[in-house]
Amino acid sequence: MRTVTVTASSQYQVLIGKGLIRQCGRLLEELADPCRVAIIADDRVDSLYGNIVHASLMYEGFSVARFTFPHGEASKNLTILGEILEFLAEQQFSRSDMILALGGGVTGDLAGFAAAVYLRGVPFVQIPTTLLAAVDSSVGGKTGIDLKGGKNLAGAFHQPAMVICDPDVFQSLSEEEFQNGISEMLKYGVLGDPELFDKLAGGDFRDPKTCDMQALEEMIETCIAMKRDIVAKDEFDTGIRQFLNLGHTLGHGIEKESRYQISHGRAVAIGLYLIARAAERAEIAEKGIARQIRRALENNGLPWECAFTPSAVAKAAMNDKKRRGGKIHFVFPQKIGSCRIIPIPVDAMEEMVEDAMSREE
Amino acid sequence: MRTVTVTASSQYQVLIGKGLIRQCGRLLEELADPCRVAIIADDRVDSLYGNIVHASLMYEGFSVARFTFPHGEASKNLTILGEILEFLAEQQFSRSDMILALGGGVTGDLAGFAAAVYLRGVPFVQIPTTLLAAVDSSVGGKTGIDLKGGKNLAGAFHQPAMVICDPDVFQSLSEEEFQNGISEMLKYGVLGDPELFDKLAGGDFRDPKTCDMQALEEMIETCIAMKRDIVAKDEFDTGIRQFLNLGHTLGHGIEKESRYQISHGRAVAIGLYLIARAAERAEIAEKGIARQIRRALENNGLPWECAFTPSAVAKAAMNDKKRRGGKIHFVFPQKIGSCRIIPIPVDAMEEMVEDAMSREE
Repeated sequence: MRTVTVTASSQYQVLIGKGLIRQCGRLLEELADPCRVAIIADDRVDSLYGNIVHASLMYEGFSVARFTFPHGEASKNLTILGEILEFLAEQQFSRSDMILALGGGVTGDLAGFAAAVYLRGVPFVQIPTTLLAAVDSSVGGKTGIDLKGGKNLAGAFHQPAMVICDPDVFQSLSEEEFQNGISEMLKYGVLGDPELFDKLAGGDFRDPKTCDMQALEEMIETCIAMKRDIVAKDEFDTGIRQFLNLGHTLGHGIEKESRYQISHGRAVAIGLYLIARAAERAEIAEKGIARQIRRALENNGLPWECAFTPSAVAKAAMNDKKRRGGKIHFVFPQKIGSCRIIPIPVDAMEEMVEDAMSREE
Repeated sequence: MRTVTVTASSQYQVLIGKGLIRQCGRLLEELADPCRVAIIADDRVDSLYGNIVHASLMYEGFSVARFTFPHGEASKNLTILGEILEFLAEQQFSRSDMILALGGGVTGDLAGFAAAVYLRGVPFVQIPTTLLAAVDSSVGGKTGIDLKGGKNLAGAFHQPAMVICDPDVFQSLSEEEFQNGISEMLKYGVLGDPELFDKLAGGDFRDPKTCDMQALEEMIETCIAMKRDIVAKDEFDTGIRQFLNLGHTLGHGIEKESRYQISHGRAVAIGLYLIARAAERAEIAEKGIARQIRRALENNGLPWECAFTPSAVAKAAMNDKKRRGGKIHFVFPQKIGSCRIIPIPVDAMEEMVEDAMSREE
């Protein structure tokens, strides 16, 4: 078992290891006296892992309540949040009880937000069941829901008490869903780890059923440790934490413009490529970086072409939280493994996106 | 103008003075560059003060958006919260803009919660328009909404950037609404200031139109300073902040049992009397304290008798956030100006309330 210790407003451990999901009761027992645990999961994940987690918790003396909601990003809204909160109130959960988010990013964000605001904060544990959630949203304490006006527009910072990451679980993911995680891992590579980028770039890890799980586990640890280091310096996202948004600002715009038909991982892949193109055009990045990124995406079954107009993408990205006054802070790659943040006036965004989409590499 | 400086996770000032509401633009200007301000108010308060605040902000160069909702505790719910959040998103508010809660406790809690979670936190300013909100909810950073299962069951800690308290505004309150504030001020007296209790006990301040406004302003400052001292030591309500719940645990139960037909101030008055009775019965408090409190309540037009059964009150109070495991932490008065916290097993609550309601003083 690998352990990454995160130090933010509270300290917690991310445990990574094959088979850990079946031992979650024992792991939670080290954290808290037997209390009540609400397992929050979508219908699909609940049917796959709900009973396994339930049994492990019961075995260690925890009392379990389960809340299930329809799978998909569309559930990450105020209505389902309200249903979770009313469920916890009905069950008379108190501050000494615990919430367990069992699922991907939608579940973690939603259940984490419920944990952040129920009784103004109760402890919660994350068991990410997607590679994407494992390397991204399950660590760092960002929780939230989507509004009609945009993604993640309401939320809270609320650190988990523990994260349990079992790579065995990722083997049941579809290739497409698995690759969404690879997209986020490529982002970490571009951000600060050329070696990680190189390992992934050839496509050796595009299939969860055949890839080297030992090597994957090690790379998951690398990504989480990188996020940990950034979060430790800027828990509340006022400075360097923005680096984690590499590829995300345009990515969110693309996701939104597609009415969330394009998944987060795929939208980030396109966003990563576009911002690399923009960085090359503006001579922020060294020549050839966009091509390097495009090939890595292609090798991993990920898209890089954008089907929307530059003005639509720019407009959709504008609602992004990163906007401060009249500017949006963009993370531009300089070379693989190094990036910088540059504020771009809202007025200049469309031209930047147009440039990135129309000119040759 | 009186100033109380609050030091919590952020530092801010509570400004108290006649006529300050007309100068709010100038006061906010010292806080932030001209930005956008969303005034959140209920329909009644909006019609009384909306235009005054709007004009003062515009005069100083702020750009103003207004959101109005139906007055009353029933609005403090997830639906109105969602409407505020969608309104802010539609208006493309960013983290450098500001929310202004103009109103009583419902508005402050609701708008403060929206400010806490919109973009995971934007600055907000409180202008309390009730005496109760001025001495209680506008200071200390507790925000939230009611759930079907109980009052304030979801919320966040989010400190305001400034509180502007204009006692002139309280003169337009009904006698009943004003007395709800006096009830909370009596609580502060019982909690830690016999002099404050004595000043109020005779009923000299029961009428907002005739009372000594200078003396009232001074007492408001005393209450806020007392709350400030407690909040500074325990912002996140894990220890001594519980003292502020004197009279509130049973009070919340009574409010809930009345389906919120009994106002917060009046429910706290009854809760204060009942817990004093319970403290006397258990020989925690000195003899005569319940009678002293009852007379002070009577002199101020406040109730002390409870129309519900002990079991109903105990049951309704049980959902209270103060519950930890199988116990609820109650604040018991020992004498006027001194209290202590004692955890009471949930099983023993009904008997305690029964005792407080059935036996003679």
